[in-house]
Amino acid sequence: MNVTLSRAACPRPAARSDGVVTAMRVERDLLGEREIPWDAYYGIHTLRAMENFPLTGVPLSWHPGLVSALACVKQAAAAAHLALGTLPEGRAGAITAACTEVRAGRLHEFFTVDVLQGGAGTSSNMNANEVIANRGLELLGHDRGDYRHLHPNDDVNRGQSTNDVYPTAVKLALYSAAAELADTMEGLAAAFGERASRFAGVVKLGRTQLQDAVPMTLGQEFRAFALTVADDAEVVRRAAGALCEVNLGGTAIGTGLNADRGFREAAVAALAALSGVPVLAARDPIESTQGVGGFLELSGALRRFALRLGKVCNDLRLLASGPQGGFGELHLPSVQAGSSIMPGKVNPVIPEAVNQVCFDVVGSDAAVTLAAQAGQLQLNAFEPLIAHHLLTAVKRLDAACRVLGAKCVSGIGADADRTRGLAERSPGLATALNPVLGYGKATELAQRSSATRRSVRDLAVEESLLTPAEAERILDPLGMAHPTVQGQGRVPGPRQAPDTTE
Amino acid sequence: MNVTLSRAACPRPAARSDGVVTAMRVERDLLGEREIPWDAYYGIHTLRAMENFPLTGVPLSWHPGLVSALACVKQAAAAAHLALGTLPEGRAGAITAACTEVRAGRLHEFFTVDVLQGGAGTSSNMNANEVIANRGLELLGHDRGDYRHLHPNDDVNRGQSTNDVYPTAVKLALYSAAAELADTMEGLAAAFGERASRFAGVVKLGRTQLQDAVPMTLGQEFRAFALTVADDAEVVRRAAGALCEVNLGGTAIGTGLNADRGFREAAVAALAALSGVPVLAARDPIESTQGVGGFLELSGALRRFALRLGKVCNDLRLLASGPQGGFGELHLPSVQAGSSIMPGKVNPVIPEAVNQVCFDVVGSDAAVTLAAQAGQLQLNAFEPLIAHHLLTAVKRLDAACRVLGAKCVSGIGADADRTRGLAERSPGLATALNPVLGYGKATELAQRSSATRRSVRDLAVEESLLTPAEAERILDPLGMAHPTVQGQGRVPGPRQAPDTTE
Amino acid sequence: MNVTLSRAACPRPAARSDGVVTAMRVERDLLGEREIPWDAYYGIHTLRAMENFPLTGVPLSWHPGLVSALACVKQAAAAAHLALGTLPEGRAGAITAACTEVRAGRLHEFFTVDVLQGGAGTSSNMNANEVIANRGLELLGHDRGDYRHLHPNDDVNRGQSTNDVYPTAVKLALYSAAAELADTMEGLAAAFGERASRFAGVVKLGRTQLQDAVPMTLGQEFRAFALTVADDAEVVRRAAGALCEVNLGGTAIGTGLNADRGFREAAVAALAALSGVPVLAARDPIESTQGVGGFLELSGALRRFALRLGKVCNDLRLLASGPQGGFGELHLPSVQAGSSIMPGKVNPVIPEAVNQVCFDVVGSDAAVTLAAQAGQLQLNAFEPLIAHHLLTAVKRLDAACRVLGAKCVSGIGADADRTRGLAERSPGLATALNPVLGYGKATELAQRSSATRRSVRDLAVEESLLTPAEAERILDPLGMAHPTVQGQGRVPGPRQAPDTTE
Amino acid sequence: MNVTLSRAACPRPAARSDGVVTAMRVERDLLGEREIPWDAYYGIHTLRAMENFPLTGVPLSWHPGLVSALACVKQAAAAAHLALGTLPEGRAGAITAACTEVRAGRLHEFFTVDVLQGGAGTSSNMNANEVIANRGLELLGHDRGDYRHLHPNDDVNRGQSTNDVYPTAVKLALYSAAAELADTMEGLAAAFGERASRFAGVVKLGRTQLQDAVPMTLGQEFRAFALTVADDAEVVRRAAGALCEVNLGGTAIGTGLNADRGFREAAVAALAALSGVPVLAARDPIESTQGVGGFLELSGALRRFALRLGKVCNDLRLLASGPQGGFGELHLPSVQAGSSIMPGKVNPVIPEAVNQVCFDVVGSDAAVTLAAQAGQLQLNAFEPLIAHHLLTAVKRLDAACRVLGAKCVSGIGADADRTRGLAERSPGLATALNPVLGYGKATELAQRSSATRRSVRDLAVEESLLTPAEAERILDPLGMAHPTVQGQGRVPGPRQAPDTTE
Repeated sequence: MNVTLSRAACPRPAARSDGVVTAMRVERDLLGEREIPWDAYYGIHTLRAMENFPLTGVPLSWHPGLVSALACVKQAAAAAHLALGTLPEGRAGAITAACTEVRAGRLHEFFTVDVLQGGAGTSSNMNANEVIANRGLELLGHDRGDYRHLHPNDDVNRGQSTNDVYPTAVKLALYSAAAELADTMEGLAAAFGERASRFAGVVKLGRTQLQDAVPMTLGQEFRAFALTVADDAEVVRRAAGALCEVNLGGTAIGTGLNADRGFREAAVAALAALSGVPVLAARDPIESTQGVGGFLELSGALRRFALRLGKVCNDLRLLASGPQGGFGELHLPSVQAGSSIMPGKVNPVIPEAVNQVCFDVVGSDAAVTLAAQAGQLQLNAFEPLIAHHLLTAVKRLDAACRVLGAKCVSGIGADADRTRGLAERSPGLATALNPVLGYGKATELAQRSSATRRSVRDLAVEESLLTPAEAERILDPLGMAHPTVQGQGRVPGPRQAPDTTE
Repeated sequence: MNVTLSRAACPRPAARSDGVVTAMRVERDLLGEREIPWDAYYGIHTLRAMENFPLTGVPLSWHPGLVSALACVKQAAAAAHLALGTLPEGRAGAITAACTEVRAGRLHEFFTVDVLQGGAGTSSNMNANEVIANRGLELLGHDRGDYRHLHPNDDVNRGQSTNDVYPTAVKLALYSAAAELADTMEGLAAAFGERASRFAGVVKLGRTQLQDAVPMTLGQEFRAFALTVADDAEVVRRAAGALCEVNLGGTAIGTGLNADRGFREAAVAALAALSGVPVLAARDPIESTQGVGGFLELSGALRRFALRLGKVCNDLRLLASGPQGGFGELHLPSVQAGSSIMPGKVNPVIPEAVNQVCFDVVGSDAAVTLAAQAGQLQLNAFEPLIAHHLLTAVKRLDAACRVLGAKCVSGIGADADRTRGLAERSPGLATALNPVLGYGKATELAQRSSATRRSVRDLAVEESLLTPAEAERILDPLGMAHPTVQGQGRVPGPRQAPDTTE
Repeated sequence: MNVTLSRAACPRPAARSDGVVTAMRVERDLLGEREIPWDAYYGIHTLRAMENFPLTGVPLSWHPGLVSALACVKQAAAAAHLALGTLPEGRAGAITAACTEVRAGRLHEFFTVDVLQGGAGTSSNMNANEVIANRGLELLGHDRGDYRHLHPNDDVNRGQSTNDVYPTAVKLALYSAAAELADTMEGLAAAFGERASRFAGVVKLGRTQLQDAVPMTLGQEFRAFALTVADDAEVVRRAAGALCEVNLGGTAIGTGLNADRGFREAAVAALAALSGVPVLAARDPIESTQGVGGFLELSGALRRFALRLGKVCNDLRLLASGPQGGFGELHLPSVQAGSSIMPGKVNPVIPEAVNQVCFDVVGSDAAVTLAAQAGQLQLNAFEPLIAHHLLTAVKRLDAACRVLGAKCVSGIGADADRTRGLAERSPGLATALNPVLGYGKATELAQRSSATRRSVRDLAVEESLLTPAEAERILDPLGMAHPTVQGQGRVPGPRQAPDTTE
Repeated sequence: MNVTLSRAACPRPAARSDGVVTAMRVERDLLGEREIPWDAYYGIHTLRAMENFPLTGVPLSWHPGLVSALACVKQAAAAAHLALGTLPEGRAGAITAACTEVRAGRLHEFFTVDVLQGGAGTSSNMNANEVIANRGLELLGHDRGDYRHLHPNDDVNRGQSTNDVYPTAVKLALYSAAAELADTMEGLAAAFGERASRFAGVVKLGRTQLQDAVPMTLGQEFRAFALTVADDAEVVRRAAGALCEVNLGGTAIGTGLNADRGFREAAVAALAALSGVPVLAARDPIESTQGVGGFLELSGALRRFALRLGKVCNDLRLLASGPQGGFGELHLPSVQAGSSIMPGKVNPVIPEAVNQVCFDVVGSDAAVTLAAQAGQLQLNAFEPLIAHHLLTAVKRLDAACRVLGAKCVSGIGADADRTRGLAERSPGLATALNPVLGYGKATELAQRSSATRRSVRDLAVEESLLTPAEAERILDPLGMAHPTVQGQGRVPGPRQAPDTTE
């Protein structure tokens, strides 16, 4: 491409033929004429959409990834046209240059339509078409709004429809955001893993149904947290991958009407090259245009992670409860004063905040769910809501993981004396005596331990059921936490003879 | 009504004119002829529906309240016709007698259509029409299926449509079930209240964000549980009340086409009299036929209760956690062995089960939500799902409340020594020192208490910040739990006239 | 109150003793010292919260109603203290003046904490305490940060806790927003009602299960829409009313520890007077502090409306489907071009946008639901999420109703020729022949009409089942739409005195 | 294994030593003694659970797949013990024989505990342990209840815990059910595909946002339905695969305490061999015991399918709407009379029923979601609810797909005249004129077509914009449906020259 662009063109109000400098320009659509601020890069379609959808106050630019993805799709389309000879070089070059700027983060303030909008994304697409056209015009040395030289629909949107451009751009933006989220999740998993290594020797009670169960180590507990997060990172990555099937080239309903022959393949290939995202042409663009399966899969993956991350945060809060009246096993880093009235109180505010992000994500998933099932016939008109919620959810989970890792997990401490003490005094230790004393005698000991708050070990030795050495070996909580390592409880002997246990 | 009914008629296979006794009879509808088991009270519409909807395996009779309510509506319609002279006395009498039997719980085994069905309840309505017609025929001395003498549509369904009969019956059934649930809830609230009185003197730590806060009594804690449940009982009752507006008489779409003049008023009045439920004719039967506002309000009320009851169960489980490694404040009654492997373990299985019912109810609410928003134009075709879920949810919450009250709440015990001990050792007590020592000094004491696990009281006396008598008075947890009783009037400024602050 | 406030004090960097003008000031909390921008009205607690919760990028000031409500609570508390003599007049006056400014919309840009935050709202409360204290200091002629003269905790937060202040403020903000929403909803109902009057004579097909049913008028259809919205306005108002029970004065857990005697009553009374909202002291502040029943009720009410409004929008879109291949009964106002590729296409973008707001609200409700059930013991730590979602949902529904009314409903037109034509040709008209010809004959006619696409009227006359005059009278769609007006009293039996049935 | 089993043993009341024949036997647990019906195969733990959880009335046997899976796990454990020498041959043989019977569908009536139960499945596990032990005892020639010879806990549950057995069995049951569902889904996809082939030549309007868009074929539309269902079948299969990671051998919390060395590997291998399901030992049994990721993934997959299947049903209902006042493109098979009042009305009851199953599944997913996030520490106590809902959802979707395929899809007909007519008259055809006449002129034609209800073709020829031959070629709907096949609109010529389009 060898296009000379006059970048400095028209940065000021144009002196019109009558010599009057005006601050407004006039554009026209099928409903009539409207004045547009002279220096606005958007046009009449954007203006009408701004007026029609004053719903959330959140402009499209709130999602810079989506704005850039729209520009990326437009640039890919221009590249395809250039290759196919279906768009003049000058126009393609102007589009390319304008898109490059948008992808670099410029002009985003002109992506002003509300994130919630009717029309299946037409307003977002036209907002992009108009900004790109007007910036292109400027680069070509023309006035903004003088669409004879570069037209939002005929040129920037050439061979395209909102119905293929918009979902393609949304998928592109989501893919990148989700991939970044997966990276962040792996970082969080690593933070949990690092703590797990540090806590490998901290023996503690395992608990089921909030009741004392059998011993484990805090390292094992944190290892499970790490695995939970790492597993979900994989699931998020897989869901992101499912977004790579795009319907670009399908135009209005997937049949490809008005797309030039070869355009679909060329545009998708250009998009992959430009974006670095391994997008593929949809197997059935008709299904792809109306279907929202990929969005649902991502939403499900985010929800799954939100629910499981929420469980981890719940556990952190519970294990750190106290200082007197709680579990008291963990110390979470103090990050701010906890109370405006209670002196010295420090609360687990980071996990609490993450819990709320998780609830928020589940809420977004519910909204996406409703929107997904409401699609009709050849299109889902509610994709703007789906896009807004998924982009938001990915971004918030990313932020939550970063905060959780940096401000909480990596600084967590353990009260190893307390965890060992609780484990040693717990009647749950009696479980290890099943194979030695039989379930019946073990139950008696456990019940007595529970009633007297004395340790099973003391009671067993006191009753001469075990020698002190046996008690030491069999009831060692750390050994019980690693039974296969210790070979614990499986030692053959008279009391374990299978014929007597019957 | 003076109708002689031959109740003994036709209990055996009819001898037909050709002398052959057959085990099947033939019925016909717009799709053709079908054989029906000779002794079945249902007819061809029911048969087809059974074949069309083999979806859940749960028959309509699973909801006896709905079956009875359908009979109640049919009986009310017959009564209205009798009064208006629009149905012959004999037919009306047969309908009345058959409905009376159904309302008494008989013939329910012939309400065989699946609870999930297409057709907005037409199959349930026709199932009722057919069973009532055939039992009526029998009572009149005719063969089942000989609809010339009593017709499912022309007589039993006269002046009615599924679209008014079905939602009216569902509302009737739900009203009764919800009223019973509200009674049960009040019983549960009373059980919490009884425990609250018993625990009035048990001082303990209040906790916010799972961290030690300031003292309260266990009685106060249980009083809040009681109020929670009692409040929701009121909300459930109010929602039940909103179901009393019925569209009976509106026929197909609410305009009342084909309903005799005066029928609507007469039928609704008869329904109120028969059922004892204060039903009223809908203000706008057109809106009422398509709207599902009443169902949504009930679903919302049930969900609210489920969420709040779940929170109460969570608290019970948490407060009973232990025996060593938990909060250890409550003893829930033991109702079964807790583990197949851990001897002596007893789990909070009753609250856990109730938690699950609560989740189940929220799930039902989600299903109802989707069905509610999917209604189109003059009807919501998905009322069978709404009915099934709401009836199930009410029934399950009722069962859950009964179980929770009888098998858990009424037998809960407290470990008063432990609760007092935790309260006295908690750094949260320092809050009471704010007005006396100032927030700064109080914070220091709280932090030291937390770090050393020594009581704020000991530290304050040790540092001569308080005399032992002052400490005793100001840091008494029971006094802190009832500050207004104790006359805690605070004057501004540190240590300004501490003797006047008490 | 007679306090001289030096409003001009300290608008510039303070010259410190060493003569250096610095742009930062230093504050201290239990974690240590931090520098604060010299001209920031917030303080160290706000700063830490900003750092701890970089989650959504949405600051507290996004909800001006909540910011003002916080100021209102603070002002009411100051008024109560002044009356009780528990806060010096000068400090109370400074607080009052600062709060007045905030309530007038000033200083909102300093409410910077993220809307999602851990700590149950402590950061929002401290943000308010700090801004009010610093503005108060300024008004008193002191430096920002010189809390000896007016302290965020000891003075502005005196006798309060986040745990009573925050939910009280949230309820206040929600009450006002919900009341405004209800007004807007009534406006929308009126717009539907106005169209209903205009369409009173437009006869059309009623449809059940998307199949032709019996005639009605478009006026009846819009009347039902109006009633739907009006009914929900009432439900929203009632839910708003339930928010008026506030726990102010309960302090940390509802026991009122550290609140001066009489403070609770005085503060609530002052709050009612200041805000104009009829707030009442909670019956049981302990329950009220941990319970979220009021929030759940409002969320349920909003959800109910969202689901029902969504149904109305679905109907509008369906009735306006076309122009060739759809129902084609309504013309929605054109508000923007519908397609970037299909010339002349106009889409129902306003209802589509409203549908999405409805999905959004249901999503918010799901998030609120999860947060509500996750509360533990004496507090629900997740109220910031609840507040954010409810405030957002109310605001968005309000915007959606305004847009729907102004840009769509009030300009809807009808294609009366088409609606009448469809009604007259529909086989559903045969329903009116049941009482005249019997259900069997009527069924035959309906089936033939459906197969041949000829009108039931023509077929009935052709077969001499009705005279042309009878057909005209009985099968008049408008008459069928208003059967009670027409005196449709039905006598049993086929063709029994057809002349008396009219 | 060479064990002689006396299968006929003890089918009658045992004559006790005192010669009295009794109908009850006595069993004992940690809470005391209870009488059990003499002939019941279950024991005291089951009895207590039946009393403790009278919640749904739905017994465990409602899920035969789960009952069989429990038996499969028990049999695998016995096989592992036999191989390891940790259970005597006689006992292992008796267990094996009893399990074989249960897997063959016998004794299911004794699996009586409620599907909703506290205790994380302990009651289900003990129900299985007891039935298997008692049937084993009987086969060994002993009395039921004489657990000295075969013990529910010590033998049948040997080396196991509810916490590994129960989720393993649930996964096994779900895997099989989900695999069957995927098969059924593929059958449904094939039914759609068969119709797609049949409808390949039926040209029709594509519609976006319920407004006429551009032409397509009905075959393309049904092909998209087929792909939707087939895609989801794959997703369901993948989710089923994720269930193959089982924590069997992890015992109480995943550490494997009390499991004999080698047991885990042997038991999992035996389970894979016995069941034919490719189960694998969990990578981290601790995570696997507390995690519910696999269940969430399946729930998400089912939900995704439910939402997308619901959309397909919505489309079928919409396309079949009419007969006069709707889209009227499809004829769904008539399966029952549609109305109790409107003669000849036939409703789309099958898709409506399927829609409701879809809502039901989304409701189950919501319940599962709540249960999943409520797990705490080393266990999720709410797995019984998860199991019940997932098993139910899979079963219902399977039934719904079968019904939809057999009773609806395979008999769908098309009104090809109508679909072609609508397409030809639609202003949407003007889209094909963009490249020929330019967007501006095309818009004018489209608007005029819409206003006059005359075809774009007629108007274009009338205005001499196209020759009749050109119009025939360019505006052929079938050609527009397959633009790439037809090479439509891309033909080079003066009017398409890129330099003149500017």
